[in-house]
Amino acid sequence: IIETTGLVDAVTERQAEESHRQDSTKVLVFTLLLTLTILTIWLFKHRRFRFLHETGLAMIYGLLVGVILRFGVHVQPDVSNSTLTCVGKSRPSSLLLNVSGHLYEYELRGEVDSRSSDNLPSVDMLRKATFDPEVFFNILLPPIIFHAGYSLKRRHFFRNLGAILTYAFVGTVISSFVIGLVMYGCVALMNAIGQLDGDFFFTDCLFFGAIISATDPVTVLAIFSELKVDVDLYALMFGESVLNDAVAIVLSSSVVAYQPSGESSQALDGRAMLTSLGVFLAVLSGSFVLGSAAGVLTALVTKFTRLRDFPLLETALFFLMSWSTFLLAEACSITGVVAVLFCGITQAHYTYNNLSAESKSRTKELFELLNFLAENFIFSYMGLTLFSFQKHVFNPVFITGAFLAIFLGRAANIYPLSFLLNLGRTNAISLNFQHVMMFAGLRGAMTFALSIRDTATYARQMMFSSTLLIVFFTVWVFGGGTTPMLSFLKIRYTHTHTHIHSYTHTHTHTQGMASLFVLWYTFDHKYVKPLLTHSGPPLITTLPACCAPVAHCLTSSQTYEQDSDSELILNHSPSMLYSDLSVSADAVFDPSSSVQDQPLLQGPTHSVLSTEESPIVPGPVPLPPHSSPLSEPLRLRL
Amino acid sequence: IIETTGLVDAVTERQAEESHRQDSTKVLVFTLLLTLTILTIWLFKHRRFRFLHETGLAMIYGLLVGVILRFGVHVQPDVSNSTLTCVGKSRPSSLLLNVSGHLYEYELRGEVDSRSSDNLPSVDMLRKATFDPEVFFNILLPPIIFHAGYSLKRRHFFRNLGAILTYAFVGTVISSFVIGLVMYGCVALMNAIGQLDGDFFFTDCLFFGAIISATDPVTVLAIFSELKVDVDLYALMFGESVLNDAVAIVLSSSVVAYQPSGESSQALDGRAMLTSLGVFLAVLSGSFVLGSAAGVLTALVTKFTRLRDFPLLETALFFLMSWSTFLLAEACSITGVVAVLFCGITQAHYTYNNLSAESKSRTKELFELLNFLAENFIFSYMGLTLFSFQKHVFNPVFITGAFLAIFLGRAANIYPLSFLLNLGRTNAISLNFQHVMMFAGLRGAMTFALSIRDTATYARQMMFSSTLLIVFFTVWVFGGGTTPMLSFLKIRYTHTHTHIHSYTHTHTHTQGMASLFVLWYTFDHKYVKPLLTHSGPPLITTLPACCAPVAHCLTSSQTYEQDSDSELILNHSPSMLYSDLSVSADAVFDPSSSVQDQPLLQGPTHSVLSTEESPIVPGPVPLPPHSSPLSEPLRLRL
Repeated sequence: IIETTGLVDAVTERQAEESHRQDSTKVLVFTLLLTLTILTIWLFKHRRFRFLHETGLAMIYGLLVGVILRFGVHVQPDVSNSTLTCVGKSRPSSLLLNVSGHLYEYELRGEVDSRSSDNLPSVDMLRKATFDPEVFFNILLPPIIFHAGYSLKRRHFFRNLGAILTYAFVGTVISSFVIGLVMYGCVALMNAIGQLDGDFFFTDCLFFGAIISATDPVTVLAIFSELKVDVDLYALMFGESVLNDAVAIVLSSSVVAYQPSGESSQALDGRAMLTSLGVFLAVLSGSFVLGSAAGVLTALVTKFTRLRDFPLLETALFFLMSWSTFLLAEACSITGVVAVLFCGITQAHYTYNNLSAESKSRTKELFELLNFLAENFIFSYMGLTLFSFQKHVFNPVFITGAFLAIFLGRAANIYPLSFLLNLGRTNAISLNFQHVMMFAGLRGAMTFALSIRDTATYARQMMFSSTLLIVFFTVWVFGGGTTPMLSFLKIRYTHTHTHIHSYTHTHTHTQGMASLFVLWYTFDHKYVKPLLTHSGPPLITTLPACCAPVAHCLTSSQTYEQDSDSELILNHSPSMLYSDLSVSADAVFDPSSSVQDQPLLQGPTHSVLSTEESPIVPGPVPLPPHSSPLSEPLRLRL
Repeated sequence: IIETTGLVDAVTERQAEESHRQDSTKVLVFTLLLTLTILTIWLFKHRRFRFLHETGLAMIYGLLVGVILRFGVHVQPDVSNSTLTCVGKSRPSSLLLNVSGHLYEYELRGEVDSRSSDNLPSVDMLRKATFDPEVFFNILLPPIIFHAGYSLKRRHFFRNLGAILTYAFVGTVISSFVIGLVMYGCVALMNAIGQLDGDFFFTDCLFFGAIISATDPVTVLAIFSELKVDVDLYALMFGESVLNDAVAIVLSSSVVAYQPSGESSQALDGRAMLTSLGVFLAVLSGSFVLGSAAGVLTALVTKFTRLRDFPLLETALFFLMSWSTFLLAEACSITGVVAVLFCGITQAHYTYNNLSAESKSRTKELFELLNFLAENFIFSYMGLTLFSFQKHVFNPVFITGAFLAIFLGRAANIYPLSFLLNLGRTNAISLNFQHVMMFAGLRGAMTFALSIRDTATYARQMMFSSTLLIVFFTVWVFGGGTTPMLSFLKIRYTHTHTHIHSYTHTHTHTQGMASLFVLWYTFDHKYVKPLLTHSGPPLITTLPACCAPVAHCLTSSQTYEQDSDSELILNHSPSMLYSDLSVSADAVFDPSSSVQDQPLLQGPTHSVLSTEESPIVPGPVPLPPHSSPLSEPLRLRL
């Protein structure tokens, strides 16, 4: 018996080794692909080529590798990898195999296409080059979304919060329904002319609308920040694209949750719709609460411990707490990616102020790197799937319908809502801005991840193939066309001009903000920030006298040190309550670096330090709002 | 049919969700465990507790969670997770399940213990809390080992290279065989008194010797660098522990490769032994060549592109190239972890000099963080496995034998080899140093990872359980006892004293180095470094006149900029060929930071900048060798 077991062990050992070797090769191919992309990106930046964005480049490389894998490599079918075929009535998530008394556990990997595996010799190779779709949701998207939240220019974001929320929430829902309805019409047409080879329910159409409505922050961020476009337009575009990712995730999962009970006939069943709405609101608010709570907790920990003396521990804690948010949300069956977004915003708003100078740059750089790698990986993988995915369903009618639908959906989001918003805004969102928002609504990583998550049915396969084409088209054509478009609409300003321009109209703009936000701002600035961070006015000065002991207890000795600095920058203006410095601004003006001790040096040092700002995702140079001619020299000297 | 498929889909969907939820919870537990560890580490550092090292702390937390999972949580057996049981004759790596025409692929997860799963209710919970052992090898060890190579104090390392190689290669092999023989005697004894319940071959004993001979760089690094111990002793200990990890991996896999053909009877078959030796040398040299080649390639890329203008791209490239080394080695079936070690050393020696100031700190910080997280994860997981692992075989005789064996094996490594080495060294390795090396040979992450890799047989289970106890014992007792031991042996110096001491005897020491290394050093300094990096004398000056066009072509305009600085530090001493600055030294003296442009400031700035050196793994403050009283003020001013 021992001899046999030994032999069996040796065989399985060898199989496991072979499988590991193949996995390594697979990841290696992608690593080299990314390396190549990086070198080409550098070359493009070096030579100042601007017509193609780096994500577009990554897609092209992915496409090339896909073509090579599909048509170039002819691998002999692997005979040694003997598989055992069982017959069952259902597909459980795990399977037990009984080999002479020993039980071995097997885990479900996915469905194998029995048709194609007989025909193509290289199909095994192609299948090996694909990743489990959950990898996107659990490994690649969280750092991207966290980074989006963490690097949000909060000042501009909060100033336009009303408009951003309107576009992201109301607009995305409108867009989803418009697209869903157009696609339903399209599917009906396909059915009539006999082009439909499978089921396509109304819920499928709605699902398609939900996943395709998410605009991509990655490309928006990259294109607009490089162009130094108007800060308000930038805030609107970026804020909307970050938040509508969250909406798209939650909306699409609500549609899925509602799908099994209602088939095509009862598609508009009122009660089920209400349930979907309930799920939507519960998941969204749950993620918001969880993400914010994790951020607040991290802020408290970093405030009340002297962890800042050990930047490595601090960075590790920051990373682990942010990751926990994702895991906790997933464990609670709400959406981790959405929770991570709110966590990122909260971390940037509160925790960031408590970190040591070194941790500030460490966390920023770490997430910047993770974001860069994950994003380029997704885009090159996208290129690859066009050729390596085995169940593409390209239907010309559906694809044409989809392109029409996203155009109509985007228009139904931007133009009517802008009209309504302009009724309440003192500085209106100009028609030119609206055109840019319409045009630059690129689809990217989130849409791809949502559509690849489930490709089991005919409907989903058709959606996936069309989504892929839409992403390619928008990234290449709209992404490449944004620059000429902006020049055409005369929105592209020179560096200095932008800022002068934006600051003159900013002042009037904030007056028009809803008083609710002003209330929250005052409260946040006076109580929440001092409670959670080392910045803002000390609690002792803001709380009523009766609370003095509590205030003393909650005020750290650090508060005063840092605060003096931020007040200097802000020039004691009455509008201090809008004065959040964005992440990169804090880094530039950071008082705890070595410069602090050498007052003689301030002028030249500032210019040296600001070059540290990342050249990849720089964003508009952050300046404090309401800069008057008087305050300007002070800021520059500091 | 559609209805049924829909229902089946919904069921499997729910199962997949449930499994994902459990996975998230599992990772969440570890994330929170690490967070707790970080907070406690901070508290210990803050209160200056020194009796327990952070890895020891991580283990204690792991133990606690293990106890809770084992005895505290009583989960009802999961009835919904219906598993299908197949009967087969072998266990293939993948399994196909046929459900009404659809083929689903299942992947082997591991063996399920049929005995225990019937008895304990919480066994499923425990099984869920374990990770695939390959996670250690493919995710956690690579950053740890790379960081060890990247942060190696190369100057001290190369000065003691002869001794380090002797201890690491000859010593580890001696130790493995001594331990193997002692354990073979121990097993024979157990067999005689009837305590052996399964097979235990001589190859198993050798395997045990190989895995348990690897001393741990993590704890050595942490303990010794905090104590500011003699730099030569530190270099010996750390260099040995880094390299013997490589030896242990390769040696143990050679033993395994040799196992299937030879059973106990032909254990000393000469030809098979020779094959093993061949495998050993081939894998070791293959990993060395691959790792170095990747490092050299990265150096060339970073030298001949202006990638340093974009630190994010540079860091990403550095990370990807280093990771590719691991993947390529794994894809070639040689040892990725060993390749990564040599890659780390090469990257630090060459590529590091080409990086921009920002990338230097970014890469250092990134790998420091990854190392910290991976290391603490492994140690807390180690604590957890003591209670959660289901197939422990604790045998008092074997455990006693193992403790005796590692003691004898370590002694057989250190004392005889030190005696032999001292014959050729002008500054002898004192007996006190030898005692410390004997005492501080802790076992850690590598030993654990090697022993958990395969726990299928009775012999391996017994080894694993004993290894766990040995790691616990050495980390807690030896780790905690090193400080008193060093004071007892009077090796613990104050900060300044150490350096004065080490520099007075360093000079004589280098004279005794083998001339082979001097040759290599001269060659490296004059040709390899200038070719691959921006530092060292330009090739134009070192190459003969006939090669001037080639030299011009290979010399970048940067060379002169950076070189002026390094020559200043080195004070033009004739011993420049030993003058590699270590990683942290480069960062401290970095000329490309903002300080460069402000000559007035140099004195105070230096003191500010040096506080940036990580407080976690600071290492002895690096000073250039051969510092004469004359050169000292110059160095300090810079």
